[in-house]
Amino acid sequence: MDEVTTGSEARQIVRRARCAGCSIGLVPTMGYLHEGHLSLVAAARHETDLVVTSIFVNPTQFGPNEDFERYPRDMERDRQLAAATGTDLLVVPSGTEMYPDGPQGQRVWVEPGPLAKYLCGASRPGHFRGVATVVAKLFAMLEPDRAYFGEKDFQQAAIIRRMARDLGFPVEVRTVPTVREASGLARSSRNVYLSGEEREQASVLRAALLEAAGNIAAGERDPSALEAAIRSRIASGAPAARVDYVSVVDAQTLQPLEGYIERDVLVALAVYFGGTRLIDNITVSP
Amino acid sequence: MDEVTTGSEARQIVRRARCAGCSIGLVPTMGYLHEGHLSLVAAARHETDLVVTSIFVNPTQFGPNEDFERYPRDMERDRQLAAATGTDLLVVPSGTEMYPDGPQGQRVWVEPGPLAKYLCGASRPGHFRGVATVVAKLFAMLEPDRAYFGEKDFQQAAIIRRMARDLGFPVEVRTVPTVREASGLARSSRNVYLSGEEREQASVLRAALLEAAGNIAAGERDPSALEAAIRSRIASGAPAARVDYVSVVDAQTLQPLEGYIERDVLVALAVYFGGTRLIDNITVSP
Repeated sequence: MDEVTTGSEARQIVRRARCAGCSIGLVPTMGYLHEGHLSLVAAARHETDLVVTSIFVNPTQFGPNEDFERYPRDMERDRQLAAATGTDLLVVPSGTEMYPDGPQGQRVWVEPGPLAKYLCGASRPGHFRGVATVVAKLFAMLEPDRAYFGEKDFQQAAIIRRMARDLGFPVEVRTVPTVREASGLARSSRNVYLSGEEREQASVLRAALLEAAGNIAAGERDPSALEAAIRSRIASGAPAARVDYVSVVDAQTLQPLEGYIERDVLVALAVYFGGTRLIDNITVSP
Repeated sequence: MDEVTTGSEARQIVRRARCAGCSIGLVPTMGYLHEGHLSLVAAARHETDLVVTSIFVNPTQFGPNEDFERYPRDMERDRQLAAATGTDLLVVPSGTEMYPDGPQGQRVWVEPGPLAKYLCGASRPGHFRGVATVVAKLFAMLEPDRAYFGEKDFQQAAIIRRMARDLGFPVEVRTVPTVREASGLARSSRNVYLSGEEREQASVLRAALLEAAGNIAAGERDPSALEAAIRSRIASGAPAARVDYVSVVDAQTLQPLEGYIERDVLVALAVYFGGTRLIDNITVSP
């Protein structure tokens, strides 16, 4: 596995590979790799010739009171995991490489539009602007054919797919199913923040989403009733939880439903355990 | 000269050339080529191995009451001029190629930030968002090493340069001096709209800018006095003119000066002759 810290080194390797006939798969991460990331690397390994994993904790997608500073980092472990699962090129750009004038000096932004209006976009103003902008930078830097994102971050993947389409990046955005712990808890770098008790309670999130899917299968079509049932399930199963949002939205537009469920929906939630914000979702066809 | 209409065809040619060791120069235009465009092609020809000229009249940079529909077009003449001046690859994308969901369906935009706040950005809301977005699309599509813009569109070039920096496109943005008619009038595709009388009067714009530069050289440091002198010169020399703006701004930030001139300034103006809006500018060191 090669490892580089600058865009120009990375591009040189990527372009040389492309000239040799290789397709390029990119797995953009913020590091502290877990099974979810590794499933993305595995998908890229399966589908493309040169697998590029990037690690960059992107400051512009964190709000002023969020966990940028304490976001977990373990470069040595990440390096081993990335190599062991088939990464060919590990790109670990510096802050200056990604933001030549510093994050505060960024002036031109990729504005993600209406897909960023609800769900995490409503709770975290500016978050998806930061995500869309940094992924555009990685696409411009690394010129991948495919890029891999996890379904846990459903809204993020939808925004990136739309960004690639609307800005003409010739990149196919691929999503990979969420990897979960045995309890059902979605893998996340932030799970490390959880106490044992919180982690146990957090398994209710997946249970509540599966119940909602079951209710839709059984004929429930009222988004409010579904949301109320999920909130109630969380309240009873996880006394430590504080719900940020629970929302049933159109799976294509990510807009809240105006009436009853008639098309594919995304049932999504964000829940705090102490200072730790967890998200999860499920897509359901009525 | 090759000519293609799709991004995938263009990219195939560009990438093949790159693998053969060629550097790529891009001249993005809206067609109806004049001497100004041709000087950009010549610069690209001089500095890069594969010269790509694109022609696309970008709807999203025109306001609702602007001249998108009647913008002059002459594909056959453009094709001959592009080939005669050394274009290797002419890219003429369709509207659908550039805007797969139509211009109204564009959702993700490149927001150009504070460089777009004044001058033409103030007069033409959304103009530079359209410019930055379409040029980002061309950069993503064609992966040039260098891209060429005219100094007549000083603000545009500054915004594109900043866009490339802030979005990490590995593209060097080059500017080329404005090409003028014998009268001093800056070459522009829109000059074709002018009557003989208007065209004659329009030469006052360059004269007024040169006078302003002379006044600064002679010690004038007050932006308001310079602006007033330019307006007065235009009023006396071009009775048909209607000034949109005359502005002395910092040449780096493009913000209006708060006090006296101490650093390089851009003296810029936009003036209507009938329905035709002309722009010109000059950069001056005090």
